[in-house]
Amino acid sequence: MTHSDLDSVVAAVRERIDPDEEERRALVDAAAELESRVHDALADLPVDADVLQVGSTARGTWLSGDRDIDLFVRFPEDLSREKLAEYGLTVGHAVLPDGHEEYAEHPYVKGDYEGFDVDLVPCYDVPTAPDIRSAVDRTPFHNTYLTERLDDDLAADVRVFKRFLKGIGAYGSDLRTEGFSGYLAELLVLEYGGFEPLLRAAADWKPQVEFDPEDHGTRSFSDPLVVIDPTDPERNVAAVCSAENVARLQHYARSLLSNPREELFFLADPPALDAEGICDHLERRGTTPVAIVFTAPDLVDDQLYPQLRKSLDGVADGLDRREFDVFRKATFAAGDAVLFVELSVAERPRVERHDGPPVHVRNHAEGFYGAYADHGDDHYGPFLDGDRFVVERPREFTTATAFLTSDALFDVALGKHVESMLREDGYEVLVGDEVATLADSFGDELGRYFDPRP
Amino acid sequence: MTHSDLDSVVAAVRERIDPDEEERRALVDAAAELESRVHDALADLPVDADVLQVGSTARGTWLSGDRDIDLFVRFPEDLSREKLAEYGLTVGHAVLPDGHEEYAEHPYVKGDYEGFDVDLVPCYDVPTAPDIRSAVDRTPFHNTYLTERLDDDLAADVRVFKRFLKGIGAYGSDLRTEGFSGYLAELLVLEYGGFEPLLRAAADWKPQVEFDPEDHGTRSFSDPLVVIDPTDPERNVAAVCSAENVARLQHYARSLLSNPREELFFLADPPALDAEGICDHLERRGTTPVAIVFTAPDLVDDQLYPQLRKSLDGVADGLDRREFDVFRKATFAAGDAVLFVELSVAERPRVERHDGPPVHVRNHAEGFYGAYADHGDDHYGPFLDGDRFVVERPREFTTATAFLTSDALFDVALGKHVESMLREDGYEVLVGDEVATLADSFGDELGRYFDPRP
Repeated sequence: MTHSDLDSVVAAVRERIDPDEEERRALVDAAAELESRVHDALADLPVDADVLQVGSTARGTWLSGDRDIDLFVRFPEDLSREKLAEYGLTVGHAVLPDGHEEYAEHPYVKGDYEGFDVDLVPCYDVPTAPDIRSAVDRTPFHNTYLTERLDDDLAADVRVFKRFLKGIGAYGSDLRTEGFSGYLAELLVLEYGGFEPLLRAAADWKPQVEFDPEDHGTRSFSDPLVVIDPTDPERNVAAVCSAENVARLQHYARSLLSNPREELFFLADPPALDAEGICDHLERRGTTPVAIVFTAPDLVDDQLYPQLRKSLDGVADGLDRREFDVFRKATFAAGDAVLFVELSVAERPRVERHDGPPVHVRNHAEGFYGAYADHGDDHYGPFLDGDRFVVERPREFTTATAFLTSDALFDVALGKHVESMLREDGYEVLVGDEVATLADSFGDELGRYFDPRP
Repeated sequence: MTHSDLDSVVAAVRERIDPDEEERRALVDAAAELESRVHDALADLPVDADVLQVGSTARGTWLSGDRDIDLFVRFPEDLSREKLAEYGLTVGHAVLPDGHEEYAEHPYVKGDYEGFDVDLVPCYDVPTAPDIRSAVDRTPFHNTYLTERLDDDLAADVRVFKRFLKGIGAYGSDLRTEGFSGYLAELLVLEYGGFEPLLRAAADWKPQVEFDPEDHGTRSFSDPLVVIDPTDPERNVAAVCSAENVARLQHYARSLLSNPREELFFLADPPALDAEGICDHLERRGTTPVAIVFTAPDLVDDQLYPQLRKSLDGVADGLDRREFDVFRKATFAAGDAVLFVELSVAERPRVERHDGPPVHVRNHAEGFYGAYADHGDDHYGPFLDGDRFVVERPREFTTATAFLTSDALFDVALGKHVESMLREDGYEVLVGDEVATLADSFGDELGRYFDPRP
């Protein structure tokens, strides 16, 4: 495959990802049956409502094997939120008797139907997108906008682009990935008129890159990629997309264009590492890793990962300020959570330099000298360096572990739930080769950490 | 003594430093005999010249025990430099038959006479200081200026101030000390009208501090202390005096005023350290010292120390740039020379982070990625950090010793003669406790280093 051109690579990818006729028919049949059940359930309610299938399976932009059917039940605008929730759940349970309730803006019912993952979401039927009363009300407008504009060819290109984003690890607008949502992928393919022109453009993007398909934007954004929502002039569809994921798309777009190959659509993660593999890397790198290990707070990923990242930054900053020189860092979670910081410096001297005021600032200089003149054997000075007093005094923490196991850890900025978990549930600090025990739960994550790729 | 007031402290100091009548008479007699010998020697020369005693022993500002007699022989302005040197040496050898030749601006004769160290220096007899043909011609003008202005009380205060400067380690305008010259000390006492007002003023100095006794300065200076030479409007008498020595005077002036005590005039150095004492300090400090030891270049101190300091700064900068984090440093010389650098970091990882260009700068980004994509197992990446490529690559030097024993040492700024000595004669690198062997030659210096005082 390596030497074929882009068209044949895309054709080969499509062989693998385009739903076949049977899959399409199964989906259409299932959706029709579900819609019919919704109508039946609505008939028993004292309210005028309709149902709309939305999402990639409604628009032909789903990838073979995706099993999501999203049905939005639109209720009149004047219905109270309480009634909307009540009716929504009534319909949901009627349609999906084995379903369970979940919660987004409103409670809704999620359940299985003939192998499909079905979401049955109530929303308000507002005349235009700017009239929405809750975020989910926007979805039907997205659906209408795209359905009107995506023909079969463009839908096929959306599937290829989504597979590419998945392959390179940039797909998903969850706060763990901070990548491209399906809606964003569809708008970009639409904007450029296909997958290949989008690739060629992305390869040359100079962020900030801005699109406003309906030319109605009213705000400015600082995000690297800005796509004004065609149904909402105040919203950047790419708000979640990180600079790193924009760069990732740019890099792999160039890579695919210069050497078209199918593997970029299905990039494999580096192999998981076992304890020995981790020790080998540490030996090769000569760094000092430290890890704070604790029970992950019971939060959804969209809340957990921002908190873990904030905590990781706080801990890394605390270590940097104590001069242990952070080399690289990462956070992992799966039952346990880990703040993993690789340090350049394992140990600092027992003394630290403390610069005093210039001697000519008499009151400060006399105060400084007086404060340190009669300290014991563990102090050196005060002495002069140029026009200033200097003292060498005992350093609070000579190892990262000493800092991480002290109360000073709680002076750094930590995510709120992470902080309570560390305080109440406690935590373990691993240092050096001890981190190899993380292989049991985080071999995949450490495999990626020690074989980092764009 | 601790609780007496400043006057009685000064009186006690004067008891120890004022030359007694016998010492004065011996000096006057010796100077008279030497001058008479000069006149005899001049009588045999085909030139009109006179002789002038200069320096502290000529002005009553010498400290008991000083044994320097400086005699300047003034020759006519129109004499050639060759003849001046020839006649100067003729007179010198006639007056001091056992003397030897030294060299300042001209050659001159130095020798012993009845226990006095006698300098017999030829110079030109110019009408005013701005007419001088060589630096030594200025000395007679200094002498005249001060002799006319220093009465016995001021001369006594000069002695006290000079003793104070010696006591605190700030006396001497040589380039090792970078302190206060005798002439500068005399001008300052004159300026303030005595030792105590000078102390009180210095305690409050806000450098830059500027004096121009004759109000004739024509240049501006950046030195912390500026005293325009009363005999030369273009010269700062305090040009050599470092910010540190100005601060030193300020600190000890305050200390003496707030707690008058004789010991400040005779501060003892910290005790010398033996090898064990050095190891004790290193253990207590937890630092990693490195020392480059080599044969000191055969230079006078005024050339040697600036070169050693420049070399020390260069080496320290080289170590800092390789992230071994210099904690403190010093240079010593006595036969051997030592560049001594105390480090906070003994070892760096085997990898270093190397930031590449932002991915959106396409040509640079593609170049960077191409350059590092296929490196071996000792490289990590390229990967993304935000919008940039990053690679972790092998670090050139993981220890300070590796750097100091490599050719890279010669890329740092070294004093010229130091560099040739290191290249041609070689050098030894000591690290950690190995530096304790320096106690044999530099126990005093290391005693001061590990007990630093203002």
